[in-house]
Amino acid sequence: MSEFILDERLAASTVHALDLPLSRVLVMNDARWPWLILVPRRAGMVEMFDLEPADRMMLIEELAMAGKQLKALTGCHKINIANLGNVVAQLHIHVIARNPDDPADPAGNGPVWGKGEAIPYEPQALQDFVQAVVKMF
Amino acid sequence: MSEFILDERLAASTVHALDLPLSRVLVMNDARWPWLILVPRRAGMVEMFDLEPADRMMLIEELAMAGKQLKALTGCHKINIANLGNVVAQLHIHVIARNPDDPADPAGNGPVWGKGEAIPYEPQALQDFVQAVVKMF
Repeated sequence: MSEFILDERLAASTVHALDLPLSRVLVMNDARWPWLILVPRRAGMVEMFDLEPADRMMLIEELAMAGKQLKALTGCHKINIANLGNVVAQLHIHVIARNPDDPADPAGNGPVWGKGEAIPYEPQALQDFVQAVVKMF
Repeated sequence: MSEFILDERLAASTVHALDLPLSRVLVMNDARWPWLILVPRRAGMVEMFDLEPADRMMLIEELAMAGKQLKALTGCHKINIANLGNVVAQLHIHVIARNPDDPADPAGNGPVWGKGEAIPYEPQALQDFVQAVVKMF
């Protein structure tokens, strides 16, 4: 059984916040949206249906918890939860806080992916957000 | 307990294929991508975390089945599974077949939402696809 290794493109654009029973929780270093990525710590997974059913049960509970707590933390209007994987194949699920005035096109409605360049957090703001995420769980 | 009623914007852009134990399965009438939408038949749901845990278990199994079978049917490269809900609040989850040469921007990598206008299927092609979706489950 091979070992789980985080895709290096995911690692490069995020900060590792914590590990849940199944998933690694990453914070996207993009101050435009409060944005988490959950990566099931299982080697070789690409699609949700690649996971064992028991892992899928854990995954959806971890996603629901992440979404609920991110909404409580940010007071956002809507949570987006999405597995795309068009660019990075390793199974990873986005959990993103959306608001009507956010910088998507159209604001609040359009998808966030592929929308311009990430705006990195200021170091203190990044540390504060990561700490808040750790405390969410 | 109020009754489940499908949002009329979802109804207007889709065809009802079948009902699973939890979810209504809709076929998006957009020939650019093989595209299903699963709508849990529970009134008043907006976020995945609004569902009861037992319903979430059913939901992720229905999504996994839909994704696996849509991939088998279409031979696509990747399945996208996403709950956005920025425009239509009623909880609904997209299951979309993606390919490297598909009409997203960039092709195969960009998100499909908000990308130009839907191209309706020819009537026979729509009927054939809906029938194939019914047989998937």
